[in-house]
Amino acid sequence: MNTPFPEPSCWLAHRISYGETDAMGVVYYANYLHLFERGRSELIRGLGFSYSVVEERGIFLPVREATCRYLAPARYDEIIHIRTGLSGQSRASLNFVYEITNADKSLVLTRGTTQHAVVNAQGRPVRIPDWLSALFD
Amino acid sequence: MNTPFPEPSCWLAHRISYGETDAMGVVYYANYLHLFERGRSELIRGLGFSYSVVEERGIFLPVREATCRYLAPARYDEIIHIRTGLSGQSRASLNFVYEITNADKSLVLTRGTTQHAVVNAQGRPVRIPDWLSALFD
Amino acid sequence: MNTPFPEPSCWLAHRISYGETDAMGVVYYANYLHLFERGRSELIRGLGFSYSVVEERGIFLPVREATCRYLAPARYDEIIHIRTGLSGQSRASLNFVYEITNADKSLVLTRGTTQHAVVNAQGRPVRIPDWLSALFD
Amino acid sequence: MNTPFPEPSCWLAHRISYGETDAMGVVYYANYLHLFERGRSELIRGLGFSYSVVEERGIFLPVREATCRYLAPARYDEIIHIRTGLSGQSRASLNFVYEITNADKSLVLTRGTTQHAVVNAQGRPVRIPDWLSALFD
Repeated sequence: MNTPFPEPSCWLAHRISYGETDAMGVVYYANYLHLFERGRSELIRGLGFSYSVVEERGIFLPVREATCRYLAPARYDEIIHIRTGLSGQSRASLNFVYEITNADKSLVLTRGTTQHAVVNAQGRPVRIPDWLSALFD
Repeated sequence: MNTPFPEPSCWLAHRISYGETDAMGVVYYANYLHLFERGRSELIRGLGFSYSVVEERGIFLPVREATCRYLAPARYDEIIHIRTGLSGQSRASLNFVYEITNADKSLVLTRGTTQHAVVNAQGRPVRIPDWLSALFD
Repeated sequence: MNTPFPEPSCWLAHRISYGETDAMGVVYYANYLHLFERGRSELIRGLGFSYSVVEERGIFLPVREATCRYLAPARYDEIIHIRTGLSGQSRASLNFVYEITNADKSLVLTRGTTQHAVVNAQGRPVRIPDWLSALFD
Repeated sequence: MNTPFPEPSCWLAHRISYGETDAMGVVYYANYLHLFERGRSELIRGLGFSYSVVEERGIFLPVREATCRYLAPARYDEIIHIRTGLSGQSRASLNFVYEITNADKSLVLTRGTTQHAVVNAQGRPVRIPDWLSALFD
């Protein structure tokens, strides 16, 4: 991934809790998707309003696909940084990319992606509303 | 707790996953409340119908208080058994007790309790409906 | 994925708890990786011995990459089935694939993959020991 | 709990993620114990050094008992504040209390307690070392 990180993007700091680790002494692999969600929420919030507002307006962004590459582990008490960027949007989907780094951002621990559908309260795919699309421009 | 375990009650077997453990190599302490919920759901289901049906009928049982005593740890791959009993019901609350044992039920690993309010979809306390109360008689 | 599901494989039934759901009313997306781990553990256990024995022998299988496609949601109280297969092994890695279906196995809810390194207690990659490789033949 | 909150104490801000909620739309009840752990870690860290250092010195603080009272729910995207205080220490145990409030600290959402044993790497109870006891004086 030598390509530049896509914009808009944001960073979110996060402290690893004991509850996020597993018996191998490192962050359990499924928890990184939870961390990606924290980053994604932060990105949307920083661009204008919370994802909770998106839902109040009747739009939901369920995940269609997620990937994660685990390059180095994170341990209890570490500060990590979650970088999130919007990598693409089509008529009815949004794509995000993620990088999680160690405390001084010198080492990438995980990289990931998520693809989201844009659906209404009935779960039916809809065109991205202009007010949502405008957030990312 | 030398008193007999309250009735109605049930047992539920559960295999400990890696994701339920923490860096101490044992099940993370918060996860026992999740296991209690599995036991509680099993008890209600076994008495007549799922808690999902209770919610469909407009009744919710949010937890008001939970306690847990940790007597011995559980580890990855172990089979544990979750015993759940109804310890009491009043006009607008339900109380459950729990014991989690090791695979051959020779050792109690944790003991716990939960108290639940009975509320409607608006979150307002209501009297326990007869159809729900009858489940436990 | 019209190719036949790889062998060896296994099925594991799992009941969705309340704690596995999120505010959208469905299983939270990160939890599917936890479910994949349950399936993977079951596959290894069924082939001869638990992954805990693998670790006792000084071999660890940290995840290098995970992917998940979300096709349909799962809800509280549903029985789902986790199908796990070994899709490949090289000198120092193991690959698994997963399908999660609804209760009667008529609908695939999620599909996923994980790639695992084979490392020793110091985290250094090692050749798959014969006793481990033999499990999968 | 009209008694003053015990000292030493600390506050920790936390943003509720989607993954912490359940199908009732609020934070799942077991997750509050996870939040208590975040508060407890912050308290110890703020007093001198991380709990990870405590473990490196061969001392572990497994939970013996936890309680939680749920007064009001927390929802996705809310900022909550976790207040943690040391409520007592004896020769071989440490007790903590917790309050979780809403964003402006005007409302207490949950109250809780945890009791911890002090054990060595073999899990045997030991007297609190002076360097640990001194943290809390």
